[in-house]
Amino acid sequence: MDLDRLGEFGLIARLASHIPHRSRRVVKGIGDDCAVYSQPGGNYLVVTADALIESVHFDLNTTTPEQLGWKTVAVNASDVAAMGAAPRFAVVTLGIPKTTKVNFLDRLYKGLGRACEAFGVDLVGGDTVSTPEHWMLSLTMLGETRKKRLFTRKGAKAGDAILMTGTVGDSALGLQILKSPGKKWSGSPADRKHLIQRHLEPTARVKETAKLAKSRLRVTSMIDVSDGLGQDLGHLLSASEVGAELWEASLPLSKPFENTCIKNGLEAGELALGGGEDYELLFTLKSEDVKKLLRSFVNYGTPVTQIGEVTARQGVVWVRTNGRRQTLRKPAGFNHF
Amino acid sequence: MDLDRLGEFGLIARLASHIPHRSRRVVKGIGDDCAVYSQPGGNYLVVTADALIESVHFDLNTTTPEQLGWKTVAVNASDVAAMGAAPRFAVVTLGIPKTTKVNFLDRLYKGLGRACEAFGVDLVGGDTVSTPEHWMLSLTMLGETRKKRLFTRKGAKAGDAILMTGTVGDSALGLQILKSPGKKWSGSPADRKHLIQRHLEPTARVKETAKLAKSRLRVTSMIDVSDGLGQDLGHLLSASEVGAELWEASLPLSKPFENTCIKNGLEAGELALGGGEDYELLFTLKSEDVKKLLRSFVNYGTPVTQIGEVTARQGVVWVRTNGRRQTLRKPAGFNHF
Ligand SMILES: Nc1ncnc2c1ncn2[C@@H]1O[C@H](COP(=O)(O)OP(=O)(O)OP(=O)(O)O)[C@@H](O)[C@H]1O
Ligand SMILES: Nc1ncnc2c1ncn2[C@@H]1O[C@H](COP(=O)(O)OP(=O)(O)OP(=O)(O)O)[C@@H](O)[C@H]1O
Repeated sequence: MDLDRLGEFGLIARLASHIPHRSRRVVKGIGDDCAVYSQPGGNYLVVTADALIESVHFDLNTTTPEQLGWKTVAVNASDVAAMGAAPRFAVVTLGIPKTTKVNFLDRLYKGLGRACEAFGVDLVGGDTVSTPEHWMLSLTMLGETRKKRLFTRKGAKAGDAILMTGTVGDSALGLQILKSPGKKWSGSPADRKHLIQRHLEPTARVKETAKLAKSRLRVTSMIDVSDGLGQDLGHLLSASEVGAELWEASLPLSKPFENTCIKNGLEAGELALGGGEDYELLFTLKSEDVKKLLRSFVNYGTPVTQIGEVTARQGVVWVRTNGRRQTLRKPAGFNHF
Repeated sequence: MDLDRLGEFGLIARLASHIPHRSRRVVKGIGDDCAVYSQPGGNYLVVTADALIESVHFDLNTTTPEQLGWKTVAVNASDVAAMGAAPRFAVVTLGIPKTTKVNFLDRLYKGLGRACEAFGVDLVGGDTVSTPEHWMLSLTMLGETRKKRLFTRKGAKAGDAILMTGTVGDSALGLQILKSPGKKWSGSPADRKHLIQRHLEPTARVKETAKLAKSRLRVTSMIDVSDGLGQDLGHLLSASEVGAELWEASLPLSKPFENTCIKNGLEAGELALGGGEDYELLFTLKSEDVKKLLRSFVNYGTPVTQIGEVTARQGVVWVRTNGRRQTLRKPAGFNHF
């Protein structure tokens, strides 16, 4: 059988079935943003791995080595944050062509180092190998929860509010701009620069998740938006065995994103729904706690917005700004095969 | 500057200098077989990463997918064992060309699964990405020490005995056989098959290290033999700031290795010293404990052999079987650049 018939998620499920034996200390194996392992001290370790491959995930003509290093750390810190955990330490595997210049590596490590500092991670080791041609960076990050408080994809209940941090769509539009150097874009170059930067230097919501984990707010599930809002919401809902209404009019869009969409005739809602790599937290909360949560994020720096509601009926109803209700079937998003 | 001027180890040292901030919980960062992190419960977590790249580390014409899966786990378990720790859990990053057949991946995961079972590891997650052309497998493994008992490269003292588990050289000779399909080899085909298997399906000395960690034997330092006996002994000695005498006549050689060397006019000692990927434990022990240790390994299944002695004077003196004493300068071994 060929890979494209199975798809990325079908493949992972199939491979997982070959893995034997699970110690009772494995609280969560394959299937969430991180795996979870219990520590003797009474809190949880979480672990995640994310790799970036040249020409698949990045293009050295458009990204600087510093940005590449930063992003490798940020995308993993985002998965740790999505579990309600704090990043602690990481190891990195570098696959580099023999022709690589040392200066390039110095700059890559400056970016790695800066991101480690920003997200509170210690890079404690790794492996360095040569590759026949393309660059490869694979990072594994470990984090710890506060006591046993864990946010997972499973737990959303009908009636819960759906919220997200930050804004959505910037990264996808930034990537689209990067990938069409020949196209004449209308609107402000500063807006486009901002969007590109959101793609190349994403942040990870480490402080925000810590704030939630420390609070008494009843967060019922969480995921980070990496594959795309529609697809990641789909993962969260299917793990929780519920559905949702998603409100287009409520999606938090940045000014540069809105402006660039309007000036270039792009459908902002569709792009926000399908585009990936925002690395924002998408989570559900008992509806009684929404006001309190929104109040606690006033003047905090990072916006948090309610974008919909969990429903008992499975599937996602996309409530358009014009009032039309559409049922989303297969949400768009990134699939590797 | 080009990479080949710096070399693999020069590069790692340089990159490490860019990494900021170390939490007090980092007991050991870059520079040993694993990094070490303290757990709240009072024992240590150790972590290591090792990647295998197609056409650099393996060739799909000569290795089966099962063997590849097995080896990916074994080489990491060996690094964990070299710290005196027990493997616990792992995450794997798979980089696969889009044309890969699902059947190949099923077989790879059978090998991964079997090795996880053999070494007591839970594979709890990973990442799956497509690559432009070559296969890539990167595994990160976590282990735990028994209380705070840790074996590191640093700690060997003049007068200590140098010992190793198993036999040395098999894997390097197996690789040499694999790489010369046109060559007419003399000697027994069964011997050659054994050597090839030692290269493709190495074991990791997980049980042996557990036995040592549980004992009262005063192990003073340890490393696993991955780059080659000469090179890895060099790492251990320089971390400990001592030297050694290494006794060629005492090197534990397997019958298939000795026979194949003799029949094909190969210098067994040189090959054993320079060849890599044995994944045996190389360690030092207070000399008063040698007898007790050797007794405890009688009838154990895995041979343990004294192969030399730690000296105050730095450098390695290679005592040849014919009595000649040579000072080893730059021990041979694998360097990626
Ligand atoms: N790219 C990297 N970034 C940070 N640390 C690295 C990197 N590559 C290697 N290291 C660290 O450098 C040290 C030496 O690396 P090396 O790969 O030689 O480890 P090893 O365990 O001795 O060998 P092997 O991987 O062959 O078992 C280890 O502590 C490792 O964690
Ligand atoms: N090759 C693999 N072997 C074992 N588990 C895997 C493998 N690839 C992915 N997984 C696991 O499958 C689940 C989904 O993987 P995926 O990469 O989509 O994670 P994610 O965190 O949702 O996404 P992202 O990596 O984009 O943040 C995770 O639990 C992950 O650990």
